[in-house]
Amino acid sequence: MGAVTDLVTFGETTVRLSPPRGDRLETAPSLDVRVSGPESNVAVGAARLGVDAAWLSKLPDSALGRRVVAALRGHGVRTGVAWADGDADRVGTVYDDRGANARVTAAIDDRDGSAFTTITPGELPGGVVESTDRFHTSGATLAASDRARSTALDLLATAGEAGVRRSFALRHGSRSTGEDRRNRQRGRDRNGGAEPAADIYRDAFDHVDTLFVSRHEARTVLSCEGDAVEIVHSLRTEFDLETVVLTREGAGAVAIAAGSVHEGPAIDGAHRDPDGTDDAFVAGFLAERIAGGDVSDALERGEATAAVTGRIDGGTAIVTGEEVDAVIADHDATER
Amino acid sequence: MGAVTDLVTFGETTVRLSPPRGDRLETAPSLDVRVSGPESNVAVGAARLGVDAAWLSKLPDSALGRRVVAALRGHGVRTGVAWADGDADRVGTVYDDRGANARVTAAIDDRDGSAFTTITPGELPGGVVESTDRFHTSGATLAASDRARSTALDLLATAGEAGVRRSFALRHGSRSTGEDRRNRQRGRDRNGGAEPAADIYRDAFDHVDTLFVSRHEARTVLSCEGDAVEIVHSLRTEFDLETVVLTREGAGAVAIAAGSVHEGPAIDGAHRDPDGTDDAFVAGFLAERIAGGDVSDALERGEATAAVTGRIDGGTAIVTGEEVDAVIADHDATER
Amino acid sequence: MGAVTDLVTFGETTVRLSPPRGDRLETAPSLDVRVSGPESNVAVGAARLGVDAAWLSKLPDSALGRRVVAALRGHGVRTGVAWADGDADRVGTVYDDRGANARVTAAIDDRDGSAFTTITPGELPGGVVESTDRFHTSGATLAASDRARSTALDLLATAGEAGVRRSFALRHGSRSTGEDRRNRQRGRDRNGGAEPAADIYRDAFDHVDTLFVSRHEARTVLSCEGDAVEIVHSLRTEFDLETVVLTREGAGAVAIAAGSVHEGPAIDGAHRDPDGTDDAFVAGFLAERIAGGDVSDALERGEATAAVTGRIDGGTAIVTGEEVDAVIADHDATER
Amino acid sequence: MGAVTDLVTFGETTVRLSPPRGDRLETAPSLDVRVSGPESNVAVGAARLGVDAAWLSKLPDSALGRRVVAALRGHGVRTGVAWADGDADRVGTVYDDRGANARVTAAIDDRDGSAFTTITPGELPGGVVESTDRFHTSGATLAASDRARSTALDLLATAGEAGVRRSFALRHGSRSTGEDRRNRQRGRDRNGGAEPAADIYRDAFDHVDTLFVSRHEARTVLSCEGDAVEIVHSLRTEFDLETVVLTREGAGAVAIAAGSVHEGPAIDGAHRDPDGTDDAFVAGFLAERIAGGDVSDALERGEATAAVTGRIDGGTAIVTGEEVDAVIADHDATER
Amino acid sequence: MGAVTDLVTFGETTVRLSPPRGDRLETAPSLDVRVSGPESNVAVGAARLGVDAAWLSKLPDSALGRRVVAALRGHGVRTGVAWADGDADRVGTVYDDRGANARVTAAIDDRDGSAFTTITPGELPGGVVESTDRFHTSGATLAASDRARSTALDLLATAGEAGVRRSFALRHGSRSTGEDRRNRQRGRDRNGGAEPAADIYRDAFDHVDTLFVSRHEARTVLSCEGDAVEIVHSLRTEFDLETVVLTREGAGAVAIAAGSVHEGPAIDGAHRDPDGTDDAFVAGFLAERIAGGDVSDALERGEATAAVTGRIDGGTAIVTGEEVDAVIADHDATER
Amino acid sequence: MGAVTDLVTFGETTVRLSPPRGDRLETAPSLDVRVSGPESNVAVGAARLGVDAAWLSKLPDSALGRRVVAALRGHGVRTGVAWADGDADRVGTVYDDRGANARVTAAIDDRDGSAFTTITPGELPGGVVESTDRFHTSGATLAASDRARSTALDLLATAGEAGVRRSFALRHGSRSTGEDRRNRQRGRDRNGGAEPAADIYRDAFDHVDTLFVSRHEARTVLSCEGDAVEIVHSLRTEFDLETVVLTREGAGAVAIAAGSVHEGPAIDGAHRDPDGTDDAFVAGFLAERIAGGDVSDALERGEATAAVTGRIDGGTAIVTGEEVDAVIADHDATER
Repeated sequence: MGAVTDLVTFGETTVRLSPPRGDRLETAPSLDVRVSGPESNVAVGAARLGVDAAWLSKLPDSALGRRVVAALRGHGVRTGVAWADGDADRVGTVYDDRGANARVTAAIDDRDGSAFTTITPGELPGGVVESTDRFHTSGATLAASDRARSTALDLLATAGEAGVRRSFALRHGSRSTGEDRRNRQRGRDRNGGAEPAADIYRDAFDHVDTLFVSRHEARTVLSCEGDAVEIVHSLRTEFDLETVVLTREGAGAVAIAAGSVHEGPAIDGAHRDPDGTDDAFVAGFLAERIAGGDVSDALERGEATAAVTGRIDGGTAIVTGEEVDAVIADHDATER
Repeated sequence: MGAVTDLVTFGETTVRLSPPRGDRLETAPSLDVRVSGPESNVAVGAARLGVDAAWLSKLPDSALGRRVVAALRGHGVRTGVAWADGDADRVGTVYDDRGANARVTAAIDDRDGSAFTTITPGELPGGVVESTDRFHTSGATLAASDRARSTALDLLATAGEAGVRRSFALRHGSRSTGEDRRNRQRGRDRNGGAEPAADIYRDAFDHVDTLFVSRHEARTVLSCEGDAVEIVHSLRTEFDLETVVLTREGAGAVAIAAGSVHEGPAIDGAHRDPDGTDDAFVAGFLAERIAGGDVSDALERGEATAAVTGRIDGGTAIVTGEEVDAVIADHDATER
Repeated sequence: MGAVTDLVTFGETTVRLSPPRGDRLETAPSLDVRVSGPESNVAVGAARLGVDAAWLSKLPDSALGRRVVAALRGHGVRTGVAWADGDADRVGTVYDDRGANARVTAAIDDRDGSAFTTITPGELPGGVVESTDRFHTSGATLAASDRARSTALDLLATAGEAGVRRSFALRHGSRSTGEDRRNRQRGRDRNGGAEPAADIYRDAFDHVDTLFVSRHEARTVLSCEGDAVEIVHSLRTEFDLETVVLTREGAGAVAIAAGSVHEGPAIDGAHRDPDGTDDAFVAGFLAERIAGGDVSDALERGEATAAVTGRIDGGTAIVTGEEVDAVIADHDATER
Repeated sequence: MGAVTDLVTFGETTVRLSPPRGDRLETAPSLDVRVSGPESNVAVGAARLGVDAAWLSKLPDSALGRRVVAALRGHGVRTGVAWADGDADRVGTVYDDRGANARVTAAIDDRDGSAFTTITPGELPGGVVESTDRFHTSGATLAASDRARSTALDLLATAGEAGVRRSFALRHGSRSTGEDRRNRQRGRDRNGGAEPAADIYRDAFDHVDTLFVSRHEARTVLSCEGDAVEIVHSLRTEFDLETVVLTREGAGAVAIAAGSVHEGPAIDGAHRDPDGTDDAFVAGFLAERIAGGDVSDALERGEATAAVTGRIDGGTAIVTGEEVDAVIADHDATER
Repeated sequence: MGAVTDLVTFGETTVRLSPPRGDRLETAPSLDVRVSGPESNVAVGAARLGVDAAWLSKLPDSALGRRVVAALRGHGVRTGVAWADGDADRVGTVYDDRGANARVTAAIDDRDGSAFTTITPGELPGGVVESTDRFHTSGATLAASDRARSTALDLLATAGEAGVRRSFALRHGSRSTGEDRRNRQRGRDRNGGAEPAADIYRDAFDHVDTLFVSRHEARTVLSCEGDAVEIVHSLRTEFDLETVVLTREGAGAVAIAAGSVHEGPAIDGAHRDPDGTDDAFVAGFLAERIAGGDVSDALERGEATAAVTGRIDGGTAIVTGEEVDAVIADHDATER
Repeated sequence: MGAVTDLVTFGETTVRLSPPRGDRLETAPSLDVRVSGPESNVAVGAARLGVDAAWLSKLPDSALGRRVVAALRGHGVRTGVAWADGDADRVGTVYDDRGANARVTAAIDDRDGSAFTTITPGELPGGVVESTDRFHTSGATLAASDRARSTALDLLATAGEAGVRRSFALRHGSRSTGEDRRNRQRGRDRNGGAEPAADIYRDAFDHVDTLFVSRHEARTVLSCEGDAVEIVHSLRTEFDLETVVLTREGAGAVAIAAGSVHEGPAIDGAHRDPDGTDDAFVAGFLAERIAGGDVSDALERGEATAAVTGRIDGGTAIVTGEEVDAVIADHDATER
């Protein structure tokens, strides 16, 4: 982990247990095992697109903990893990299901008491955040526990002091996470529940250059109404952000950066599994930026990465740069 | 089974063997095993929605017979089973397939000689039908065998004398059963084939308060033409029924009750597997009525229960009341 | 089917539905589908060892009926099938399970009313039995129904008049079939049950040159006690047979032929699934005889074919001549 | 749950997630889902052997909680469940693995914070324990949490006052549970860890008539050395018990009852999966006693039930009375 | 193979390894095994529709080689195989994947060095091509290797001299094969790559009566622009063909035969898996022609066969004549 | 790859496709996909036991090539891969089967023309071999192709000059590889076949400190007879080796090092799958030596690592140091 990287992410990664398509959690004889987290999904997607990406977190040294690391390393992500011992030795677990709607939803959120909730900055490998180009985390991390939140803020501050560009995805029950209202409430519970959800995130905005937010989140969490362009303008002003990227389900993303508004293409993903598509969008966006692309190219690459990911079961962006390029080329050809 | 129940159903439940999605009966290396029957599907759906539901039938005391009972009990249905011994020791079996159309169809109906075809009223636990609020059976039961038919008529008469409300689903090759013409013919064969299909059912109508029928069945089996409202009026008059509920594929159900016509919403189920959706409709309808809801609410709850069930492989309504409520709320929100 | 063949077999082939290893019929979410029959198993094993083998039977023209034919043709067996229409359109079905002992046992025998039970000689392609070198059938065929029995006797007689060598496997609940007592009783029931089991088979012995029988069957069905050599002598004398082959579980087979006794090697199969091993023995034995080998070589090849088959799930001898040769070579090397 | 039952059990039932045979928890793409608990396993086994058995516990009202209940009801067990809401809404989870030895071991014990750990006597349906013939619980329940322990002691006391016979299985890392040292330590942690393991159980012994204990537990937990007969004598005296049943891996169980020593047969189970075999033993033993059998017959039936269960994956005794009888008959035949 | 057949096909058949739906080649724990080839797919489809069809090819005598033959024989195709020994003992392999688009694409074409690439006319059974009614091969065979190409041309010439009707499917990266540009390039490589793709096929056109070509192939390979009718006219003239059949994705096929243009219906297949649908079209077309149908009927039957095949995973047309008839009847009913 | 490592390995890693247990390659509907190679297996096992291990090889940049790298990285192995482009873009493939014996055997060796066979030293990352403590390769690498052989010899020479300790496993059809005679012959073919098998390896012995060889290989490949001690003495003298380790199936390994003979324990693995156990032995041996253990400890750790690996399907040593320690402790406890 000592090497200089392009992108460092920080957050909890869970084991997700999912019934096979067509079956339900209550009756499925077996559950598919996958590894997913808002920040590690970004790291995997970016690494697969050529970025030298790393992920920082805390896990128990168990078969499930090792499984999380193996999955990420297999996709080329460097891992900087604080291995828990003693009390906090759970891996956070999420059970998927399909119920009142056709989408996969996180039916049971069983992350309480996970090793990650006990994380402190001192447990993580030193010097990693300072020596990267970009740092990324999400609202799910802030909501995980008080310790997770203060560690995230600490890392954001450290990165900022080192001149590292910092991005943040709100990830507060977005379309991609499939987290329903019940889980969002629980997210608040994990944080104590005293302060409104938005307040948890506002502290982070002080340390952030780029914010990724869905239109639904902008409205329900940040109480920001209007059309897409109005929202990005308003959020940029309110939180003094350099870049705001607003994703819209079924429509292209809109970004404001350096005062200019950019609109990305709406690439039809015919989504098979929406879990992870927002993370894939972030991965594609950051990969393009790291490769030197401009914001418009980044929007396009983000949408294309999300489109490919939406065709795969599970939240991991098992994509290649060639495939993403092909989606972009196809889309361009069709539009003309 | 001695306890007073909300709903008692009576009919044959079969083992259904289905190739995995994308494969065919002729080549699939393994077949999924499920348990399904027009009346037990109703009992399961109703029980899951909070109804104290029971199911009466006859089965052999074999691994497959016990499997049928275990599946129903697991969903909370009380079972009153006449355990067959001696000659008639088959469980009726149905093999599913996907062939000339994309739907699951009952490719092979292997129910002849099943234990259920030998059932007589005296074999069933006594006093059950008299001490329930509602009794439900279907045309598939009447067509199973002469014994099954006379047992069903006997139970309907007994229930009627005890003042129990009686409902009947025609289930003669409806959209939900996926039974094709060949199987319908065979259904007639099982009954002897001498009298026209409709005549089998007419005797039952004398004992029935509520009839569930699909538009297709109304036309092809009961020779009743016209639009939905005309059909329910006409059937109500012809058979002197209190309530007639007409389901329409891709459109909402229409009911006539106490002289008033009610139209239910068309809730898009994006059906993954149509098997069992009509039974789920009946379950939702009856559950709402038992809970004190009016006919309009019952139509809505029926459609919503069918919509959730259509997303699940197999005919069982593995739903919760919360999920059905969410579908209704979603639909209401969208319509407004 | 017009071509001259080395071996023609006649009998019922069923669809066998088996829970995956470690699970039970009452709870397995899916069942493996295989095709098995005492005579078609012999035809498959022989065909895979280079014999030009055929199988005669009756099946419904359904997905399951076609599946039976496809499985046998895939292994190189020619099929002469009377396709049933009308009433008798079931494929016989057998459900496997593992219960009171570790072996696979036929938990549910659901063959009543199968198309095969309605077979008559006139439905089969003509001239086939007369133009082969060897004809083979089994006691399971005689016990299937009166029609099956008289068809088998008719074919045996026809073959005998044409100078065809005829073999017969008792297959009355042998170790390999895994059929338990309950199923044996049922076998009798299918035949009417009036006459003792042995009498069903004695008629056939008049038409048979070679009898395959297990030690267990010799004792329980044919009431023949003594050691292996005494049994083969006694059976040969009692039924005036040219050759008697006695298989012994865990020990080599013993044969009497042309007055000489031959003892086969005991080849350890470390049996994973005993279903079909006796059929594989017969296949290996007949293949060697057809290839011109003597009785001792045939015993060895039979045991080796059974040993390979015992390592495979299901009753089909998915073997190659090379593999069987290798088993024989290994055994010879070890013995020396 | 109001009806009078033969047997009431009380304890935690977990979801067990197991890699398919031959794979490991760290790499298996899917995990088999089963439901298991020391007391519910006893209830299932007894119910399948004809006992009217019930199980008391606490679960969250989630898909996994409902799954636990459905599994038990499917086997005929009556369930009296306190449905948790609010904070304690986890189902206890155990991950299986095969590692340093060939047996399934509970690799990850993820039961902390389960709904069951918050149970209090007042949450359970009233009058159940008083109106049964026998009550059964285990040491695993005492070790689950302080609340679970005091609830268990409360139920034992209530049962005792009502004259109900009470049995107790130590289940402290027995051969059947496959729980290794690490999990045993954790069991202590859940209880606070202050007092030695044995002391947790001694309080319960005051309320118990029959103790089931393995030889290994007798030595390591109760510090009781000697041969089997010495151990049962010594435990009976030390804890003033009416009956002590000592199970021995690979050898028959030994019991002392009313001053007489009985030795059960050693029935070879060729165990495929040892999980649940000790619970199956208890189920068989109690079923025989409830049916009026004496202690010797109960030992035999216990061993036979364990032998059948050992051949099935998972801890559930998916057996029938006929199969257990057949195992006993086979064993008797062999022994003679 | 000596018997007179309706249709003889010649070409390479590969083992196709496919990740389960929703998974990717890079991560799937297991791969489904299927057998597919442009010519054997035609033979299977035709055989299932009642045609006496044969397939000529070369394979190694290995488990995979035997598997190919077993699959085809199981569907009723006669096989005339040159069994390779010595050096060229590979079965050509193709790995499927879903990537930049939702369709199955041949991600890895691993056919180089297969036994088929070494084929010579003398290795095939003699007299087969001369004694059939129709002979069919494809451009994929011409592109496989120089030897495959010259063998195909030799067989076409022999068939022509014997008055056999000869058809040819271009199959150069059609919609049905899902072969992308990379594989098409490789197809050229296998041929040496010196001459343009079209030139490989032109030699064959001299020996062909009927050409099947997709609109995409007509444009990109044969440089033929215009609307469908213009294309079939132009190709017929340029290559002096009797019949040209142009398939159009999402639209009906268009044929010119004996100077008349015929337009087939567009039957919506709601394609689950496009692999093999073009082959199924050819099978249906030829089966209808062999049965005496005219070109319009053949177009309809081709489209219907493709529609059923598109609902099944894999390229094999596991259809029955009844199912295809039902699709045609349904389509006719809807159109009216 | 620039960092200093404990162990660098070099060799070909293949995709292994295996039928599920109980099925055969000719009939299995799906094949399990695993990644295995004699040297990468050693690297994985060592990495899992705490060694900083790397693996050098050549692969195509395809889904299968990336899969190989992902699998190894997931287990913590650093990978230094020359990514092939252009012609040689196959991943070597091996198909497993169970045939004439119960063991998994490499039924089809489809490695010809793999990217690895075209490897040259210049394609590999520079400086890796010089900066490690130990270098390991095997005879399978020498036999892969002339280029592979000369690259291996080049790396051995470079390592030797840098003072790196070099080990070599003969791996010429050992018990663990399951490679049968046919594949060994093919191994020779790949090398040209001109010189005897042993001569291929002798060149390497000049550059090697430690040789791992099985007793079977010692006899059949190196023509070295006698008991184990005689063999290690004789090989050490003949090839002037520092250490010779001889593995014996079913018995402990024997080593000669610095003139002293050491005998390892025979740890019963009750092998489920022998593939990879010899590689696991080497991994355990080298891990212990790297950790500073003496030769006796290394033999013990090697045997224990092999024992755990033998219980897992596939050749990968999915073990932990704790598990291996537990096996050693168990074995020590039993022996005393």
